[in-house]
Amino acid sequence: MTRENNINIIETTVDSKRVFDGLILHIDHITNRLPNGKLAAREIARHVGASAVVPVDAEGNVWLVKQFRAPIDQVLLEIPAGKLDYKGEDRLKAAKRELQEETGLTAASWTHLSDIVTTPGFSDEKISLYLARDLSAGQSHPDEDEFLNVVRVPLAELVAMIMRGEVTDSKTICAVLLAEKAING
Amino acid sequence: MTRENNINIIETTVDSKRVFDGLILHIDHITNRLPNGKLAAREIARHVGASAVVPVDAEGNVWLVKQFRAPIDQVLLEIPAGKLDYKGEDRLKAAKRELQEETGLTAASWTHLSDIVTTPGFSDEKISLYLARDLSAGQSHPDEDEFLNVVRVPLAELVAMIMRGEVTDSKTICAVLLAEKAING
Repeated sequence: MTRENNINIIETTVDSKRVFDGLILHIDHITNRLPNGKLAAREIARHVGASAVVPVDAEGNVWLVKQFRAPIDQVLLEIPAGKLDYKGEDRLKAAKRELQEETGLTAASWTHLSDIVTTPGFSDEKISLYLARDLSAGQSHPDEDEFLNVVRVPLAELVAMIMRGEVTDSKTICAVLLAEKAING
Repeated sequence: MTRENNINIIETTVDSKRVFDGLILHIDHITNRLPNGKLAAREIARHVGASAVVPVDAEGNVWLVKQFRAPIDQVLLEIPAGKLDYKGEDRLKAAKRELQEETGLTAASWTHLSDIVTTPGFSDEKISLYLARDLSAGQSHPDEDEFLNVVRVPLAELVAMIMRGEVTDSKTICAVLLAEKAING
């Protein structure tokens, strides 16, 4: 979206202060000047960003991980993904690392699907989504405090699961539906 | 995902404390017992949750809003959406309110598409996604500090924009691709 076409809705930051430094989140309270000249407080959770991968093997199976997610106290079915090691890290490199760590897979063919912002109302997290093909199996090595079950689901069945509401992770839904369109046209 | 099948990856919370109370985010630091018996710190941003709507009119156009998003300092193209007024608010009611506030539209036909978790690695935000049809125009009334431009895009063109990476908001990508499948089969 160009700023030029939306000048009537643009806000300008006039003040910013860090109010919380956490383990992975850093919260800023900023003051923005609104299009009508008034000031408004905005809360922003700064996040390093992440990469995520839809790995599709020669049989048309998607490799996924089941992982316990403390914020929702549930086991989720997700595509392999992980945080960048630092702000500005090469996102394809991070995608390759996370795929190998979580599933042991390496891939000879990589396609960038899209970059998504997960929660633009309150955080700056951006996730880069990739499709990985021409897979080779190897040894996984999750982080020390990361416990995963790797599962394989045929792409068409995974799309049906998404349509039935059985997959709820937003990056996984975005990436799998984009990958399906990229593969099947 | 059932807990029974994933007992080897379940964590159990042994301690929790509120470490930050913000405008819309409330941060907890919890201590979880891992499957291997060790303890790990987890950071959770509690969020009230939200509803979002894909409004499709009789001509096949999707009604969208362009909105400035402070966390990413950009104008985003998004489906109409908004936070619940309180935890546990009826999510369809919230969807109807947000659609009317942001676009002036009311709808005679509502379909639940899915519920998504936007960032299960660090927050508990859940967004309920709906498809709204049989639309009637009316007067919008955004919140006092909310500035929006309403635009209409044909559904097929919006899907093409998503595939080209021109739409980056994850709830919008999820909801529009789900709505397209619900409408076109």
